[in-house]
Amino acid sequence: MDTKHNERRENYRYFHAIATRWMDNDVYGHVNNVTYYSYFDTATNAYLIEEGGLDISNSPVIGVIVNSGCNYKSSIAFPQPLEAGLRVDRLGNSSVQYGVAIFAEGQDQASAFGHFVHVFVDRTTNKPVPIPEKIRTALARLTD
Amino acid sequence: MDTKHNERRENYRYFHAIATRWMDNDVYGHVNNVTYYSYFDTATNAYLIEEGGLDISNSPVIGVIVNSGCNYKSSIAFPQPLEAGLRVDRLGNSSVQYGVAIFAEGQDQASAFGHFVHVFVDRTTNKPVPIPEKIRTALARLTD
Amino acid sequence: MDTKHNERRENYRYFHAIATRWMDNDVYGHVNNVTYYSYFDTATNAYLIEEGGLDISNSPVIGVIVNSGCNYKSSIAFPQPLEAGLRVDRLGNSSVQYGVAIFAEGQDQASAFGHFVHVFVDRTTNKPVPIPEKIRTALARLTD
Amino acid sequence: MDTKHNERRENYRYFHAIATRWMDNDVYGHVNNVTYYSYFDTATNAYLIEEGGLDISNSPVIGVIVNSGCNYKSSIAFPQPLEAGLRVDRLGNSSVQYGVAIFAEGQDQASAFGHFVHVFVDRTTNKPVPIPEKIRTALARLTD
Repeated sequence: MDTKHNERRENYRYFHAIATRWMDNDVYGHVNNVTYYSYFDTATNAYLIEEGGLDISNSPVIGVIVNSGCNYKSSIAFPQPLEAGLRVDRLGNSSVQYGVAIFAEGQDQASAFGHFVHVFVDRTTNKPVPIPEKIRTALARLTD
Repeated sequence: MDTKHNERRENYRYFHAIATRWMDNDVYGHVNNVTYYSYFDTATNAYLIEEGGLDISNSPVIGVIVNSGCNYKSSIAFPQPLEAGLRVDRLGNSSVQYGVAIFAEGQDQASAFGHFVHVFVDRTTNKPVPIPEKIRTALARLTD
Repeated sequence: MDTKHNERRENYRYFHAIATRWMDNDVYGHVNNVTYYSYFDTATNAYLIEEGGLDISNSPVIGVIVNSGCNYKSSIAFPQPLEAGLRVDRLGNSSVQYGVAIFAEGQDQASAFGHFVHVFVDRTTNKPVPIPEKIRTALARLTD
Repeated sequence: MDTKHNERRENYRYFHAIATRWMDNDVYGHVNNVTYYSYFDTATNAYLIEEGGLDISNSPVIGVIVNSGCNYKSSIAFPQPLEAGLRVDRLGNSSVQYGVAIFAEGQDQASAFGHFVHVFVDRTTNKPVPIPEKIRTALARLTD
């Protein structure tokens, strides 16, 4: 999928409000490149908790990230309010690839977009396992 | 002022919504003690920017912190929504002492409360200067 | 104990090297006030792990912070290497108060100093318990 | 270039020691995926400052990140000491692509590897400009 597709709000299925913080801005005066990944993480886990029933302290199956990436298109800065958009690009047996994007509140064009892959593993053995049913159902709602 | 006073919502004058993040939780499963100070920083600077006209990239006078402290009363955790409460306890010529507290959204009793002192300095020389008039007016509204 | 005492390297008993990071600097070009607490946390837990045998993933007894504070004396910035100094100011039955300070590498005068209190609790019930013997022995070595 | 190539220490040209922090570990007990990008940032800017003469507070030309990515191979955790490896994969007129990797101290096999692209821009106008000569010379030393 191309950049134009990934930049448009209409191509995301779930939105999570992100409140910027003083420390998000770096010495160059904008949200640091690292912090965008924290927004991605936060939006995705919020969805898994609220809609998929993930219990981050006790669930026997958890999602671990095996790769991630981000394209930065325009700068943003505290105290600007943001929204993270989320969709599912590929839903496998034990893994899921997300499409993610960060929007200045109310904007149609993303400031940045990226992707990451969760592999679901047994919390104790760290071995891949099938995605738990409730989480799979929630993720399926974010595919096209 | 005593703990009971500092814990009650009614003793704060400005409230700022804080959205927790995945990374706020540490290995013990709760918001890390360090992160509370980032909430304090964020709420206070949001107020100074919105109400006091502070331009964090260009203002010739900026606030630097000379001391800070926090008392932790009960734990909080992502994805719980929070609110930071702010008041002014002492408004001097070039410095201000804030009272700050963190509430689980909608609670009357603080999860943590603290204080910190901003000294306003010339951005270039780093020397204390009188608090700019627009900021002083905004801060005065947060005193009792 | 007075400021002069707290600022001097000779009044700390354990030192931990802190490598600054790009993100430690905020928009004003210096290490953000919040980040100092992360240095305190890191130095203290490194000591508890290495000398006290704390296993942060599995120990049945963990230390939780009930209050903390910091006085900022001079600014520091990435990429400057730092050292955190640690001592024990009060060793109780289930709690310990630390004195902590941050030094530019090799300096005798602290850039900042502070304190915090750990209460040791049962990881499951969250109730205070006596400090485990191996940790107590390690902490006792940091008192005068 | 393939995964095997990117995982081996011998394929990096500059190494920067990374001291892990308490807060680097997330609720799952390992360094959070986001934090790796902060290690990449730190190692690269340390090199640009020390070898390329970059002054992050005053240089008229600064590097901004336009894309980044990371592959996670094995977990790491505080208080483990780490090293970041850096090389230059492509050196253009105004941009540079880095190869980066994180190693547990002394290991030959990376725990994670990734890349990112810096575009050098005029600090005021934000327009791309040629890479300053001293920085270019330093970067050229990191190519094969």
